[in-house]
Amino acid sequence: MTNPLELFFDPQGVAVIGASNDPAKLSYGVVRNLKEHGYQGAIYPINPKGGEMLDLKIYRNIAEVPDPLELAVIMVRAEMVPGELRACGERGLKVVIVITGGFREVGEEGAALERSLKTIADEYGMRLIGPNCVGTMDTHIPLDTTFISQMPRRGAIGFASHSGAIVGGTIDWAIQMGVGFSRIASLGNQVDVSIADGIGMMAASPHTKVINLYAEGIPDGPGFVKAAAAIYREKPIVIVKAGRTSAGTRAVASHTGALAGTGRAYAAACHRAGVLMADSLQEQNDIAMALAHQPLPAGPRVALLTNAGGPAALAADGLDDVDLKMADLTPETQAQLKAVTPHGTQLGNPVDMLGGPRAEMFSAALDIILADPGVDMALAMFVPQAITPVNDVARHVVEAAARATKPVACCLVGGISITKAIHILHEGNVPFYPDPTRAAKALGGLWQYAQLKARPDLTPVPLEDVSRELAEQILKQAWERAKEPGNSPVFLDAETAGEVAAAYGIRVPFSGIAHSVDEAVALAERAGGPVVAKLIAPGLIHKADVGGIALGLRGADEVRAAFTRMVGTHADRALMVQQMAPKGQEVILGAQRDPQFGPLLMFGMGGIYVEVLKDVAFRLAPLCAEDAHAMIAETAAGKIMAGVRGQAPGDIAAVVDTLRRVGQLVADFPQISEMDINPLIVGAEGEGAWAVDVRMAITGA
Amino acid sequence: MTNPLELFFDPQGVAVIGASNDPAKLSYGVVRNLKEHGYQGAIYPINPKGGEMLDLKIYRNIAEVPDPLELAVIMVRAEMVPGELRACGERGLKVVIVITGGFREVGEEGAALERSLKTIADEYGMRLIGPNCVGTMDTHIPLDTTFISQMPRRGAIGFASHSGAIVGGTIDWAIQMGVGFSRIASLGNQVDVSIADGIGMMAASPHTKVINLYAEGIPDGPGFVKAAAAIYREKPIVIVKAGRTSAGTRAVASHTGALAGTGRAYAAACHRAGVLMADSLQEQNDIAMALAHQPLPAGPRVALLTNAGGPAALAADGLDDVDLKMADLTPETQAQLKAVTPHGTQLGNPVDMLGGPRAEMFSAALDIILADPGVDMALAMFVPQAITPVNDVARHVVEAAARATKPVACCLVGGISITKAIHILHEGNVPFYPDPTRAAKALGGLWQYAQLKARPDLTPVPLEDVSRELAEQILKQAWERAKEPGNSPVFLDAETAGEVAAAYGIRVPFSGIAHSVDEAVALAERAGGPVVAKLIAPGLIHKADVGGIALGLRGADEVRAAFTRMVGTHADRALMVQQMAPKGQEVILGAQRDPQFGPLLMFGMGGIYVEVLKDVAFRLAPLCAEDAHAMIAETAAGKIMAGVRGQAPGDIAAVVDTLRRVGQLVADFPQISEMDINPLIVGAEGEGAWAVDVRMAITGA
Repeated sequence: MTNPLELFFDPQGVAVIGASNDPAKLSYGVVRNLKEHGYQGAIYPINPKGGEMLDLKIYRNIAEVPDPLELAVIMVRAEMVPGELRACGERGLKVVIVITGGFREVGEEGAALERSLKTIADEYGMRLIGPNCVGTMDTHIPLDTTFISQMPRRGAIGFASHSGAIVGGTIDWAIQMGVGFSRIASLGNQVDVSIADGIGMMAASPHTKVINLYAEGIPDGPGFVKAAAAIYREKPIVIVKAGRTSAGTRAVASHTGALAGTGRAYAAACHRAGVLMADSLQEQNDIAMALAHQPLPAGPRVALLTNAGGPAALAADGLDDVDLKMADLTPETQAQLKAVTPHGTQLGNPVDMLGGPRAEMFSAALDIILADPGVDMALAMFVPQAITPVNDVARHVVEAAARATKPVACCLVGGISITKAIHILHEGNVPFYPDPTRAAKALGGLWQYAQLKARPDLTPVPLEDVSRELAEQILKQAWERAKEPGNSPVFLDAETAGEVAAAYGIRVPFSGIAHSVDEAVALAERAGGPVVAKLIAPGLIHKADVGGIALGLRGADEVRAAFTRMVGTHADRALMVQQMAPKGQEVILGAQRDPQFGPLLMFGMGGIYVEVLKDVAFRLAPLCAEDAHAMIAETAAGKIMAGVRGQAPGDIAAVVDTLRRVGQLVADFPQISEMDINPLIVGAEGEGAWAVDVRMAITGA
Repeated sequence: MTNPLELFFDPQGVAVIGASNDPAKLSYGVVRNLKEHGYQGAIYPINPKGGEMLDLKIYRNIAEVPDPLELAVIMVRAEMVPGELRACGERGLKVVIVITGGFREVGEEGAALERSLKTIADEYGMRLIGPNCVGTMDTHIPLDTTFISQMPRRGAIGFASHSGAIVGGTIDWAIQMGVGFSRIASLGNQVDVSIADGIGMMAASPHTKVINLYAEGIPDGPGFVKAAAAIYREKPIVIVKAGRTSAGTRAVASHTGALAGTGRAYAAACHRAGVLMADSLQEQNDIAMALAHQPLPAGPRVALLTNAGGPAALAADGLDDVDLKMADLTPETQAQLKAVTPHGTQLGNPVDMLGGPRAEMFSAALDIILADPGVDMALAMFVPQAITPVNDVARHVVEAAARATKPVACCLVGGISITKAIHILHEGNVPFYPDPTRAAKALGGLWQYAQLKARPDLTPVPLEDVSRELAEQILKQAWERAKEPGNSPVFLDAETAGEVAAAYGIRVPFSGIAHSVDEAVALAERAGGPVVAKLIAPGLIHKADVGGIALGLRGADEVRAAFTRMVGTHADRALMVQQMAPKGQEVILGAQRDPQFGPLLMFGMGGIYVEVLKDVAFRLAPLCAEDAHAMIAETAAGKIMAGVRGQAPGDIAAVVDTLRRVGQLVADFPQISEMDINPLIVGAEGEGAWAVDVRMAITGA
């Protein structure tokens, strides 16, 4: 086996270190689950006391254990874990699960103990899941290294989770609903095996058709993006991340000490990585159930088949909310439906069979609906009533779905009377939803994934015509200053920042700094045409707020007057004199470094109201041209730039180019912690874009 | 009994017209439910064949039925319903339920039959529920006139539903979950008793603590607003409406032919009416469960108590999404918690008791948390595990909630192992949620209602200083024209529209129409100061798009040049010469008539990008000053007007005044179908606002 991570799910022999023969102990549960949940390899309980449990010999230590042995599960007290881990290394193991808690999550002492685990694992070349986790499951092998009392049925959903509790809750739900899983891994504190590895481990099972992730922090952002991007076109990935908001971050931090990425960097990372984001565990499972067994839709058009108009109307609203469309059924389809549905059936979409359709009408009508070339997906809806057995309806939906090459989902609006029907649907590979709006949202996830799978490659191509050396040289001095204690970040003056930008091919107007009236006049003459004068003063950031900007100065007199008014005799002030950019749309273009995901680009509506309008889009940097186009198109600023109300379109290509250059600049120089071009003035098509005001902050880290 | 609608739930004697003694028939089900679900009054099955069923005498017709008889349920074939309804009138009944379907929903013939029901009911002064419905339930009386096999347990949720299927599905769910209802009414086609009446009927039960509504169309919009506004401060109302979107409208229309209100008018109506809007049935019930038994929170601060960090982090994100806050626990609270929770418990918020707290720790910790003055609500969260019995946890949460004066909710993350705990919670009046995000959203509903209940009265006070007579006189000619076939709507020219606005005290710059160069110059002189020239030409609406606006003309020469350029020698053109408004923020202010809810006001960011930015807020017209302020504050335009980045604030009071005047104008004149002030130029505080361009469309209807 080439990939050692496979041994977490398919090992030859498993040892349970710290196994107890007291059925009240969690370690007893692990041995019991290995045995009772069908693991076919050798099981070795280990406890210094020796003896027997569950008809298995208890070994006194791991050195004693005979071959084959490929996986150890450690459940001893935290302070004893390093010793046992080392013994595993000596025994030649390549993978170990540490279930024991009491490490990073309990403070600095625990964190130090946790770091020692990583050191030992690295020393022996071992991979380690945990500590503070509940272990792994593979329902197909089968293998269950957890103490959770039941294992879900065999299925196609892989689930890698930061939280063991959420694994427990999910399994409890899966058993009630009859939902199948392929593999499950609880990753705990992720001292070694991370959520990024979790993606690969889930994908490695041939039974996994969709990968669910639950993450608190994502410490290795770039690793996560890389792992997901490598697999998402083959197997869809759906993530729920706690700590999207500042409130959630606080809850996460108090629990595991994990750093949580900010919401925007996280969303940008998921976009780049091809990962679907769900807002809740419920939504994640709703989407995953659809992705697990249904084919992908070729388009967004949905047909509804129902025995009640109300739920169908709610589903139609839900479809609209996720950008799906109500399909138009052809006259031929409607004629065929008339023949197999009750008298009075509404033959449009929704196809409403009214109160009492027979169960077999569901399969007959679905066959016809799914054959319509204008239909991409079908949702069968049924409200249980006295006449038609809901279990039979479920069976007929399953039959039709099994024959279909288009996705089918089923919504049963009810509770006590549908519990068996839910199992019939899930065992028949049809996703079930109790609420019309949830069903619609899950179909939206299917279509969203179909589009992700088909999107162009987003790998950025490095630009050749940038001068990294020149930029480095200009940045050097600021960087040296920033490295001195207490100096970080250093804000570059506008002119220096402009020079760095220019080194990367970003178009910056000619400018210079004048310390005297004569210098100002000379600079204005060199710039030619009208100039802008901007006050430079210690600590001044928002110049416009204090009258520190004068636009369109023409001739020596106007320049002189501006110098006198703004700088006057203040020795610590100077005036930046800058060539005035042509008229155009003002946009903002910025970059910021996220601690988890690295450099992040922002684009949006410029001007003084940027913080009020919040019309901005984010991407990881660097980015490719296609993605820069998509980023611009997401914003109102982009829609205006594309030309509205008969106005000429702006030079979008120039903005795309500037975004790529800024992206490469901040990716090349991690010391640039923040950068703003505000405004970037965008001329008409072919006229280019001007970075009129460039700000940059340099950190010493 | 003063209110006849009470007889739908608490009648002395019920007749079932069309009762069958075949247990497979729905009409058998109605008689069975009346009897078996505990109705204490007399039950009279009626069928021309006579005989007996369920130990009850079957009467041949309603005339035969002895007193007391106060309610009839009609279940005969559609074409026979009018005759039976008339017989009910002759028998002296005041209320009748028509369960039979096959009316408006099957076409024009059915619609005519349906109208005849209304005529007959009115003739006899009867109130009628249906047709095409499933009847009524009161769990406390008890009374069950439906054929649905089970009745939910006694509770505090009233539910009035357009759709009978959704009533059926909801009851099926309620029985599974142990959720109680007070009253349920399925209203069907609403030929007489409407969703507006449904509000009053639900509120009338002393057991009803929250009113759930499911609506497809809302035909009587003003009646709905009036009914809800009268009751919402006493009993919260939560609505789900199908047909929010164009897709949903289509699904609704094909089912019942009901007109669905547009999403924006609907939202404005719910705002005015004090109704909480839910996006799905699930969300509606989630919120209603919290409102049914929990006290209202005094603020938005939530404390989480949990045995697992992951679900708490997801709940914290969910709280943030609905504008709730994570409470800060005082050091005293944390010290007290330390004494009653396991070693290692995280004492901040969330209070995370880690893996294995004992069940009684939930009540002890909740008592302490709820006593903290910084806590407004508590959410207890538990992921079932091997050590702590989940049913005991539920019991302890119920105990603490029963003692508390602050709201408590419970989230259990699981499935198969929590089914009994769910019933313990609901029977203990604690709302249960299976998903942390859903729990957070439900608490958000509690807080949203607490704020609604406390909001100022929104009743608009009519303005005195408007000249209705003058406006009527100006509008008269256009209205006469609009009444001629094919003429509606008539668009007023800018000057006339401005005069109408001015009659209502809206500040409109001086202007006049010039048909010659000399007239233009004379008008400019009368206006004084700089003027604006606007082209008037047949069919021209968006003047800016065709160069039809010239700003800031000074002196006769500039006015002459503008006239020559825009009007020239075109006989069908003219030039509007207008006093130029001072500089200021440009906003848009509009009104439109919604077919369900009447006149609707819009406010938002003005300028040419209004349709791109979509920064707009809506209200029903007319409106009070408080609500106009709130409307403005909802938009980015309003935030800018309040003063950002050190800019002086705009004259918000003038905008409020203009909104009130436009609101009253369109309310007074239903013939104004659309109106736009674009832009309204808003000066600095105290400078007022100028309606620079007024458009108005007049319909003949």
